[in-house]
Amino acid sequence: MKRTAYILTTACTSLLLVLGATSASAQSAFAKPEDAIKYRQSALSVLGTQFGRLAPVVREQAPFDAAAVQKQTALLTQLAALPWEAFGPGTEGGKARDDVWKETPKFQQAATNMQTAMAKLDDAAKSGDLAQVKAAYGAVGQSCKACHDSFRNR
Amino acid sequence: MKRTAYILTTACTSLLLVLGATSASAQSAFAKPEDAIKYRQSALSVLGTQFGRLAPVVREQAPFDAAAVQKQTALLTQLAALPWEAFGPGTEGGKARDDVWKETPKFQQAATNMQTAMAKLDDAAKSGDLAQVKAAYGAVGQSCKACHDSFRNR
Repeated sequence: MKRTAYILTTACTSLLLVLGATSASAQSAFAKPEDAIKYRQSALSVLGTQFGRLAPVVREQAPFDAAAVQKQTALLTQLAALPWEAFGPGTEGGKARDDVWKETPKFQQAATNMQTAMAKLDDAAKSGDLAQVKAAYGAVGQSCKACHDSFRNR
Repeated sequence: MKRTAYILTTACTSLLLVLGATSASAQSAFAKPEDAIKYRQSALSVLGTQFGRLAPVVREQAPFDAAAVQKQTALLTQLAALPWEAFGPGTEGGKARDDVWKETPKFQQAATNMQTAMAKLDDAAKSGDLAQVKAAYGAVGQSCKACHDSFRNR
């Protein structure tokens, strides 16, 4: 229940941020569009690097330290929530395709899908079962790719 | 005690990362020096943006929502730990002065000072007392500036 509540809260927060970004108060989170672009690229870059830290464990090239993996997935769950507020109206540019703003509900769903997958990876890490971590890690990777394929310029 | 243990753990982790970065395994956290530079700039940028989110509260331009502030300081405490592993040997460049690598213990101390100040800000947020939050926020800002003044090119 707690996890479901978390996902719903996250999803609602994302939705409110996208919707709310039309108001002056939400837009003022970033003084200039380029600030929003720099922030979201930075947040996604840090997320990608930290997510990749689990790759050696998932590939069994590094030992599976359940406590260390769970610490990492807890961090990832927090990082996964950060980029989305910076895709508000008027912040077009960077590597983002215009489809982010033309198909906002689809983009918002893709962002929510990633956060849901990350929350499941965190659950898998808590289970202490490497097989579950592997499966959940793959699902997060797919959610990243799905969004990049649709919304990021190469 | 828990807080002290956290700070010591953080400080030791930072020290081990700086020392350990001389080994091949730690260096491999980033495939290329430019990856480390991009990562640390991104992590510091996200940290700076998220730290700045508290400014309106501290300046009393926004209401003091203790729970929201504490959520933010918990995030900041995690973000504050991220950049430092990316200043290992052989990653000179970006905006970082060579002094980072010439005076590593001094740089490492500056990084630890910021994390200690951030932990105190988190404690202040937990107290629910705006005066304490203001003072601790100022101390974090000073720790950022002290490190930038010594180790970042303008």
